Amino acid sequence: MPTLIRFHRTGGPEVLSYDQVAAPALGADEVRLKVEAIGINRAEVMFREGKYIEEPSFPSPLGYEAAGVIEEVGAGVAEFRVGDRAASIPAFSMKKYGTYGDSVVLPASAMIKTPDHFSSEESSASWMQYFTAFLLIEFGGMKRGDHVLITAAASSVGLAAIQLANAVGAHPIATTRKKDKVQPLLEAGASAVIDVKESSLVDEVKRLTSGQGANLIFDPVVGPQLAALCEAAAESANVFVYGALSPEPAPFPLFQALGKNLTLRAYQLGLIVRNPEKLERAKAWILSRIAAGELKPKIAKVFPFDQMVEAHRFMESNEQIGKIIVSFSKK
Amino acid sequence: MPTLIRFHRTGGPEVLSYDQVAAPALGADEVRLKVEAIGINRAEVMFREGKYIEEPSFPSPLGYEAAGVIEEVGAGVAEFRVGDRAASIPAFSMKKYGTYGDSVVLPASAMIKTPDHFSSEESSASWMQYFTAFLLIEFGGMKRGDHVLITAAASSVGLAAIQLANAVGAHPIATTRKKDKVQPLLEAGASAVIDVKESSLVDEVKRLTSGQGANLIFDPVVGPQLAALCEAAAESANVFVYGALSPEPAPFPLFQALGKNLTLRAYQLGLIVRNPEKLERAKAWILSRIAAGELKPKIAKVFPFDQMVEAHRFMESNEQIGKIIVSFSKK
Repeated sequence: MPTLIRFHRTGGPEVLSYDQVAAPALGADEVRLKVEAIGINRAEVMFREGKYIEEPSFPSPLGYEAAGVIEEVGAGVAEFRVGDRAASIPAFSMKKYGTYGDSVVLPASAMIKTPDHFSSEESSASWMQYFTAFLLIEFGGMKRGDHVLITAAASSVGLAAIQLANAVGAHPIATTRKKDKVQPLLEAGASAVIDVKESSLVDEVKRLTSGQGANLIFDPVVGPQLAALCEAAAESANVFVYGALSPEPAPFPLFQALGKNLTLRAYQLGLIVRNPEKLERAKAWILSRIAAGELKPKIAKVFPFDQMVEAHRFMESNEQIGKIIVSFSKK
Repeated sequence: MPTLIRFHRTGGPEVLSYDQVAAPALGADEVRLKVEAIGINRAEVMFREGKYIEEPSFPSPLGYEAAGVIEEVGAGVAEFRVGDRAASIPAFSMKKYGTYGDSVVLPASAMIKTPDHFSSEESSASWMQYFTAFLLIEFGGMKRGDHVLITAAASSVGLAAIQLANAVGAHPIATTRKKDKVQPLLEAGASAVIDVKESSLVDEVKRLTSGQGANLIFDPVVGPQLAALCEAAAESANVFVYGALSPEPAPFPLFQALGKNLTLRAYQLGLIVRNPEKLERAKAWILSRIAAGELKPKIAKVFPFDQMVEAHRFMESNEQIGKIIVSFSKK
């Protein structure tokens, strides 16, 4: 009987529960995945805490990302075959599907084949981050010479945004609150790193952009810092917010916004991964850059399957640089 | 010697001062306009109060709109001739130019010929409102069937937005805080009017759009009501803010924005009128619709030139429906 990691009430990492659950029959458009690795996301921590955009119904599945081997395909599935190495794209609701388990059912439309030279760990670490960062290209038109301000840059999505910026010839300016992440972020490709505890975000961005400010801003934090981000923005900049890490309310910085004709766009991944045309465009771009070696996920730490609670605690510590993985190969 | 209405300190309408000022020599790219009518704008009230995006330097000129007859053209001006009926487009800074006077100097790039069948009063009432509302078409892609929520709809720009929405076949939903403006707004073309003091903006928009919400929102108020506007917005809606009428801070409604992938765009007219390509496109569209009789400014009240203080007081009363004009024909 498959083991799923679910939760029966919202709360801290200790609410995660290893449940034996009878394998459900497969729908026509679903696949069954033998899981080899699970990518852990901040969204799952927030969902577990009851602080996400969607509310769980109990017992609730959990998890957006997993990679492994297809072990069964629904009657209507043509794109995948049993034995294919594949991974999930987060194009579903955690109210219905989850990836935390040793064998999970997922919609075939939310699967992608694992690139040949990627391990399942790497594949489970790739799709949330690259499809999310692709918003900068699909909606922000990120291009050579752009100054891109990336906050919480040591997160997996932040690092993915740095890689995408470099891939198109833009200048990724990273921010962090931890001094010991500055050097790793430079090594990860940031053209500059601002330690926001040590120096002024606005002054540094202005200095790094010859006074112009950042054309594109990519922020999962929001909260009171939104005002500084808008101050650091260039004329007609796009400010993308893709998360809600700050629990504090954010002001709408109206005079900054009016004075510089700013656009604030709140985006979720669904805008790309639930739109077949945009999804195909993103897939083609990302897979070609992975094949060319320009994109490669950075894995912060790998936990064994029986240590999901520890993996969530590590996520909450904010010590990681890159993706946290739970792998069945890790003992 | 020309009489200009200027102000020597910020404050209430009483700071407006009728000053005799020697006519300056004309720059190569400037024209001198014999003023017949002046259109009054909220921006001028805010500038006079020191609460606008730009700060005045004293003595400060004032005014974005005037129409009349060209009485002199600079050496480099080819598009206008002495005797042409023309009006200003607000494509300049009030730190440098103003329209409150009997003879004023303006940049030729910020002038437009008055349509043949328009009076100078109508011409002075047209360009701020139609070019501002044109943001909905240029940046919002407003089209047939869209539900467009227009706040402060009895303002000149609000009424212009109603006319533009009708011109493309969209449904303009107007809001007002004054019960006695409901019927006039319906007569002005609103498909529905919400009296926000009497009923819930969110509930009414949902009811009027079969639960979908508004695709486009056009708001000069901002302030705390921004949260309700975002709640009334449809999935992937564009929320345009083009003013700062509320003195209160606005929250950035992050969860609404993320949950519906909203885009908040802060726009000033300059994005169109200071961009030659966009300005030409807007001009062509607006002039053709004026010629077709689809656009016609609504004039709320006309004051004589010696009653500019009263005209500003009337603007501040918020009783008007449409444009307030100061005219030299009015005695």
